[in-house]
Amino acid sequence: MESHQILSTELGRLLAKHSQVLSTAESCTGGGVATAVTDIAGSSAWFDRAFITYSNEAKMEMLAVCAETLDQYGAVSEAVVQEMVTGALKYSNATIAVSISGIAGPGGGSEDKPVGTVCFAWADVNSWQAVETVRFSGDRCAVRSQAVEYALKTLCDYLTEC
Amino acid sequence: MESHQILSTELGRLLAKHSQVLSTAESCTGGGVATAVTDIAGSSAWFDRAFITYSNEAKMEMLAVCAETLDQYGAVSEAVVQEMVTGALKYSNATIAVSISGIAGPGGGSEDKPVGTVCFAWADVNSWQAVETVRFSGDRCAVRSQAVEYALKTLCDYLTEC
Repeated sequence: MESHQILSTELGRLLAKHSQVLSTAESCTGGGVATAVTDIAGSSAWFDRAFITYSNEAKMEMLAVCAETLDQYGAVSEAVVQEMVTGALKYSNATIAVSISGIAGPGGGSEDKPVGTVCFAWADVNSWQAVETVRFSGDRCAVRSQAVEYALKTLCDYLTEC
Repeated sequence: MESHQILSTELGRLLAKHSQVLSTAESCTGGGVATAVTDIAGSSAWFDRAFITYSNEAKMEMLAVCAETLDQYGAVSEAVVQEMVTGALKYSNATIAVSISGIAGPGGGSEDKPVGTVCFAWADVNSWQAVETVRFSGDRCAVRSQAVEYALKTLCDYLTEC
């Protein structure tokens, strides 16, 4: 995961430069973003905690995702990741957060949401918000790896521009 | 991380066989155990959530680790990982859990607790409890990787014997 390490190093530098602290709320990546960020020595200065909410109960209990939102839109939806990222900011000391929920496969895909569909939301305490659905190709490992990379890269891009 | 994948596959098989559900509470590994476990397709059947409590505040807020325990013994201590694993079982739907706190380095080491010192606790709802301090060698990446492997292997060993 050399690309993750390069991105995490850059992200750490940018978070430190802007005095921002990160938290993650992850479902399909299972902690992959948090693991990448904490691969970097000194990351306790810019990383607070992560909520690995694999089950729907975890999303509700740890991040206050609404049962109605899960029922209406499904766990892999922009509505759910927006509630996840709001929860990650609310229930941590972080100033910036990313949330991820997707279908890594090989099972769980549908016509509307095929394997590789991953929803992301990003937010910071200065009211930046972004939400996106991306369809990655490849197997479970490839989908998860690309999702981690995309989450890190978007954070880097935002922090570079601000 | 091929060894992690072999262990995670075996752990998934054992958790499913015994109808157990896992949760992790991780500090120095930053989600590495959760990431490894969820690398396996179908892991939502045996994995509920993870608490990545990198800061002391996160350990207290997410897992109810006592401030006094952190003050008296330090974040990298058997007393703290025991409270972490108790919290992981209490605040999840899991039936078995592992907690990890250590000094991955390169900074943060001391004479008593050199870089590579990692404390683990394991517990299940049938009152199995184990706690151990291990000193791994190598750099930050090596220490984290060995800690993930040790956590997975000990869970496999326990579930094989029970």
